[in-house]
Amino acid sequence: MQVNIALKQVVDNSYDIAIDTIKPIHFDTKVAIVTNPKVAGLHLSYLLSKITAKELYIITVPDGEEYKNQDSVNLILESLFNHKFNRKSMLIAFGGGVIGDMTGFAASIYQRGIKFIQIPTTLLSQVDASVGGKTGMNNSYGKNLIGAFHQPKSVLIDPHFLTTLPAREFSAGVAEIIKMAVTFNKEFFEFLESADLSDAAVLQDVIKQAVQTKASVVAKDEKEQGIRAALNYGHTFGHVVENETKYKKYLHGEAVAIGMVLANETAVKMGLMSTYEALRVKNLLQKYSLPVSYEISNSDSFYETFFLDKKSSDSSITFILPVGIGDVKITDSCDKSLILSVLDTFGAK
Amino acid sequence: MQVNIALKQVVDNSYDIAIDTIKPIHFDTKVAIVTNPKVAGLHLSYLLSKITAKELYIITVPDGEEYKNQDSVNLILESLFNHKFNRKSMLIAFGGGVIGDMTGFAASIYQRGIKFIQIPTTLLSQVDASVGGKTGMNNSYGKNLIGAFHQPKSVLIDPHFLTTLPAREFSAGVAEIIKMAVTFNKEFFEFLESADLSDAAVLQDVIKQAVQTKASVVAKDEKEQGIRAALNYGHTFGHVVENETKYKKYLHGEAVAIGMVLANETAVKMGLMSTYEALRVKNLLQKYSLPVSYEISNSDSFYETFFLDKKSSDSSITFILPVGIGDVKITDSCDKSLILSVLDTFGAK
Repeated sequence: MQVNIALKQVVDNSYDIAIDTIKPIHFDTKVAIVTNPKVAGLHLSYLLSKITAKELYIITVPDGEEYKNQDSVNLILESLFNHKFNRKSMLIAFGGGVIGDMTGFAASIYQRGIKFIQIPTTLLSQVDASVGGKTGMNNSYGKNLIGAFHQPKSVLIDPHFLTTLPAREFSAGVAEIIKMAVTFNKEFFEFLESADLSDAAVLQDVIKQAVQTKASVVAKDEKEQGIRAALNYGHTFGHVVENETKYKKYLHGEAVAIGMVLANETAVKMGLMSTYEALRVKNLLQKYSLPVSYEISNSDSFYETFFLDKKSSDSSITFILPVGIGDVKITDSCDKSLILSVLDTFGAK
Repeated sequence: MQVNIALKQVVDNSYDIAIDTIKPIHFDTKVAIVTNPKVAGLHLSYLLSKITAKELYIITVPDGEEYKNQDSVNLILESLFNHKFNRKSMLIAFGGGVIGDMTGFAASIYQRGIKFIQIPTTLLSQVDASVGGKTGMNNSYGKNLIGAFHQPKSVLIDPHFLTTLPAREFSAGVAEIIKMAVTFNKEFFEFLESADLSDAAVLQDVIKQAVQTKASVVAKDEKEQGIRAALNYGHTFGHVVENETKYKKYLHGEAVAIGMVLANETAVKMGLMSTYEALRVKNLLQKYSLPVSYEISNSDSFYETFFLDKKSSDSSITFILPVGIGDVKITDSCDKSLILSVLDTFGAK
C-alpha cells in the first residue's frame, strides 16, 4: 500500500535589494531590530529615524564572530518569546554578516519560520552575506555548521553605514567582491583593476555589480546543489586558515583572500590558470592590503581539517578552482598529493 | 538603485509513504538511526535485519515528550559532527512523534539541511506526525515553538511495530484519526463509527485513509498559510490542557480529544454544529476510552494561555471549529465572552 505526498509546487522566494539611502517605512506588526552594541551606538539613531512599527524592540547580541553561536541565537529567540512574537512579526538584522546570519537563522526556526529583513552595515555583508538566504551559526566543530536556507523579505543596502567602517574591514569586503569577479565576470574583474573605490559613485556601482553577479548565481541554484558552490572559491582553503588561527587572526575576507591564492596555485598546477592570471589576482588583492601568504606549519594536518568542512562529501573534498579569470571549475577529484605539494611550497614563500 | 533576486521556481518535495512490511534496503552513505532506548530494545533488531548502510550509527535520546528539547537535539547534532556526517548523509527517525520531530529538526539545520526518512512506530506518528514535514522541539515557553518545515525523503509505516503498542497509546493515535475524519471526511467518520480496529486489515485501511486525508490537505498548503491550519482542530484547546498539566497527565492525543470536545461545544454555541453531531464525536472518542472532560479551575488563566500558542496572531486567537461533521471553519473572530462561557460550563459537567 502506498500513498504519494504531492508537494511539487511553485515557490516564490524573490526579493528586492535596494542600494540607496533607506526610505522611511512603518510596519503594522511587532518588529525586533537585532544588532550589536557597537553598530547600535554608531547607527541606531539613524535607523530609528527611518523605521517605525506597531511595537518596536531592540535586541543586542555581543559583537564578534566568536559569539556567532547557540547562546546568542537563544538570546534572540528568548526575547521574541518574552514579547510574544508570532508568525506575522518581523525581524530586522542590523549589522554585519554575523548579525545577519544569526538573525536569519533565528527567523527560520522561530515558530517554524518568520519574516526578516537584512540591513547590512559592512561592505562584506552588503555584497555577500545579504544575498542568497544562507543563515547559520558556528559551533565547536567549525563555521556555519548549523543553519538553514531562509530568504529575507528584502535587503536595504545604505552606503551611509560604510562611512564609519574601518579600512581593514572595508578591504575584507573587497576580497569577496574580487572573488565574484574572478569566478564569474572577467569584465568586472578588469573594471576593479582600474577602479577607485574611494569615489562614492564608483563604490555604489561596484556594490551593484557584485550583488548582481551573486544574485544571478543564486537564482540558478538557490540551495547550492550545483553552480552556487562556486561562490565558495577561496573558502575551502580559507576555512582551514580560519580554523587553524581560531577565527582570531584574520577577518573572514582576509582568510578568503589567502584561500583564493591557494586555490589559484592549485589551478596553475593543474593547468587551469596561467601564472600571469594568478599574479593579476594576487596584485588586485594586494591593492587592498589583503593578505596573500600564510605559514602552513603542517600540510597533513591542514589537509585533514578540510574534512570538517561541510562542502566535502563522504570521502572527497570539493575544490573550487578558477579557469583563467571569469570562469570556474568545481571538482572533487584533486589528488591529495597535488594539494599537499601546493601546501608544502606555500609556506616557503 | 535596485536589484531583484529572482527565486521563483518549481520545488518538488514530493515523497512516498509505504504502508507495509519494510523491504530490505541498503544505503551507500553514512546513515544514523535516531531512536530511544525503549523502541531500540523492542524493535531495533527487526529494523537492522532490513536496513544496512556504508556506515551505520545508532543514536538514542531519552524517551518522552519532556526530552523533546534543545539538549536532545544537540545530542543528535554532536553525534553527527563526531562521525563527520555531511550533506549526502541520511538520518532515520525511528520512534514516535517526539523522535520524528527532533530528528527532522536536526536534519533540517545540520549543515543547512540533510535528508531524513521517517519510520514511525506509534499509531499517532504513523497517521499524523509522519505526514507533512513539520519538525521541531519544545522549550520553556511551550510546545513545538522552535522548528522548521522539512519534508522526509520517504515514510515507512510498518504495522509490525503496533503489535507492542500499549492500548492507551493506540487510542491516542485514534484521536488524531477521528480529528481528520471530523474536519475533512464524513464518510471516513461514519466508517470509523462501525469499524473494528482490532482487525489488522481494517486497521491498515484506516491508516491509509487517515494518511490520504492528511496528505491531500498538506499538498494544498505545505507551509500552513491556510487550510492546513484546520488540522489543528482540537489543538488550540488541547495545547492549553497539555500546558496546564505540564505535559504529564495526558498523552498528546488524549489532550487533543479533550480539545475537540471543547471546540465542538464552541461550534454548537455558534450554531455551526448540532448537539447530536457533537454527541456522535464524543461517543466515538469514548469508544476508544479517550478522555472527553477536563476540570478547568480558572477560565481566565486558561484563556490567557492561548496567547502562547504560535497559531495566534498579534491580538487574536485562531479557532478551528467543525461545521457539522466533515467540514471545518477557521476563525479568529470568536468573542472572548463566548469562549469563556464554554470554559466556565465545561468543568461543571
